Amino acid sequence: MRKTIVIALGGNAIKQADESGTAEEQFKNVQTTCRQLASMLMYGHRLVITHGNGPQAGNLLLQQEAGKEEVPPQPFDIVGAMTQGQIGYMFQQTLQNFLWEQRTPLPVISVVNQVLVSEDDPDYQDPSKPVGPFYTKEEAEKIKAERPEYVIKEVKPPSVEKRFRRVVASPDPIRNIEYLAIRKMVQTGIVVIASGGGGVPVVMDEKGCFRGTAAVIDKDKAGQRLAAVVGADVFMVLTDVDHAKVNFGTPEERDIGCATYSEMVKYAEEGHFKAGSMGPKVEACLRFIKWGGTLAIITSLDKAIGALIGQTGTRIVPDPVC
Amino acid sequence: MRKTIVIALGGNAIKQADESGTAEEQFKNVQTTCRQLASMLMYGHRLVITHGNGPQAGNLLLQQEAGKEEVPPQPFDIVGAMTQGQIGYMFQQTLQNFLWEQRTPLPVISVVNQVLVSEDDPDYQDPSKPVGPFYTKEEAEKIKAERPEYVIKEVKPPSVEKRFRRVVASPDPIRNIEYLAIRKMVQTGIVVIASGGGGVPVVMDEKGCFRGTAAVIDKDKAGQRLAAVVGADVFMVLTDVDHAKVNFGTPEERDIGCATYSEMVKYAEEGHFKAGSMGPKVEACLRFIKWGGTLAIITSLDKAIGALIGQTGTRIVPDPVC
Repeated sequence: MRKTIVIALGGNAIKQADESGTAEEQFKNVQTTCRQLASMLMYGHRLVITHGNGPQAGNLLLQQEAGKEEVPPQPFDIVGAMTQGQIGYMFQQTLQNFLWEQRTPLPVISVVNQVLVSEDDPDYQDPSKPVGPFYTKEEAEKIKAERPEYVIKEVKPPSVEKRFRRVVASPDPIRNIEYLAIRKMVQTGIVVIASGGGGVPVVMDEKGCFRGTAAVIDKDKAGQRLAAVVGADVFMVLTDVDHAKVNFGTPEERDIGCATYSEMVKYAEEGHFKAGSMGPKVEACLRFIKWGGTLAIITSLDKAIGALIGQTGTRIVPDPVC
Repeated sequence: MRKTIVIALGGNAIKQADESGTAEEQFKNVQTTCRQLASMLMYGHRLVITHGNGPQAGNLLLQQEAGKEEVPPQPFDIVGAMTQGQIGYMFQQTLQNFLWEQRTPLPVISVVNQVLVSEDDPDYQDPSKPVGPFYTKEEAEKIKAERPEYVIKEVKPPSVEKRFRRVVASPDPIRNIEYLAIRKMVQTGIVVIASGGGGVPVVMDEKGCFRGTAAVIDKDKAGQRLAAVVGADVFMVLTDVDHAKVNFGTPEERDIGCATYSEMVKYAEEGHFKAGSMGPKVEACLRFIKWGGTLAIITSLDKAIGALIGQTGTRIVPDPVC
């Protein structure tokens, strides 16, 4: 049966941790990823693809810092939009090429996509997501004087000289601004790459107008909002492990195979999923099922197709109705 | 009558020549532009918007150069895609906000968009479009040794120390790669921002796959390809002058008002339009009419609406059939 699947790709789909981020490296990783995505498309599924942007935004912030005497650095929302262009292009072209090689051409396109957050989100009170370059104490004080809106925190032990870094909020995504365009695109059969980096974060002013904000939105949670918008059958979080686990990192560690919504909520309440790692992925999946989705999957990139047909991965399904 | 209009915006729609390119400055210019675009949308017209990216790509190349010890610079095609994200975001958000203020919400979205060129294009034999930083003779030689694929030329008089610059080809756009997605989007009523910076330039290999190339595509010529793709009624080139002119810069200078295709071809053959300035704009308009378009307009941003209803601007129409 033809399904609409929203896929949230982890950072390793684009850049490995030990790589510097050259275009060659990134295109190579993107190729590995797109080979899997192309197979799903050839099974006849409709795909909407989203991805992180941490390393790419980080690199761009470093370049902006290095060039700031010559060129005015762009704010955080624009940096996000730039990485959507960058990463979207790599996926779009690579996927088009694989589809063409298989003589299954389908329209594939990336969009610039904003996601609404609220400045009342509690995370703005004590932001903790580090972004951009590391600074010495002196540099940090100078930057703070130049840009009073920056929150700068000590993020490495005092023994390290460059230990200060800008931190921004990671607010909960409220809704996808371009939901109508994206929904129409998916309905007409376009493979859409959207909400990259969790979406460009925007807030709404008193008139109902949008403007960018310095924040990092969790890409899996934003992916769930995207899945709701397109009425996805399946929401798939692809990461670097095959399964979510109970008792992770202990001798009692065990893969979670198929789990109902309530079972998964129980595991979450028991503290099996680490905040900032498996935690938000599970939460995004639970939101998807709660909203009405029929299947949420957490697995690794190479197990994606197997997980879709029930052979592997963590598969979260609604509670039985009886 | 509701028309589909493709608008190619000049550089002044985003950044004035005397500005450094801060986000504030660019958003302000984009607001002025979007006020006009919003009016056209409120008249009921369908819009497809394209724009240049010269200053933004230039700034990003400078930042990449400044940060190259820390972060690997991205190639030219990726820089293009990044500026599509950057500029698309500013237009998209600003236009959404104006439409919302007028309570005429319409889906507006920017796409990452590639444009096919050929490495057999004669411009690759002697590239002449300068991009990125200026170098001294020594720096130029060092860069040339590191990246043998670069063509570096002397672009300022020998008296200036930093007078060398990378040059790339400016090949003719052959076709818009994402034409099918863009056509479907426009048909479903989405306001699309596409082919920014003339499109991300790609070439096709022997297998029929695409890969990026270092080139700059003329945004007006690429805009004409976009207009053909969406079956536009009107192709509009907005620049910093109200009219194309005959005998430009002489005492006999005269605005061109309404002109037939053949009249305009004659003016072009007589050499009235400067290469690299009005020349490619006129050529793009002539291609549009030749392809079957009914009206091509060259005018300034503030005259756009007047030109659409025949009050001002240079309006190029097909030859009368009799």
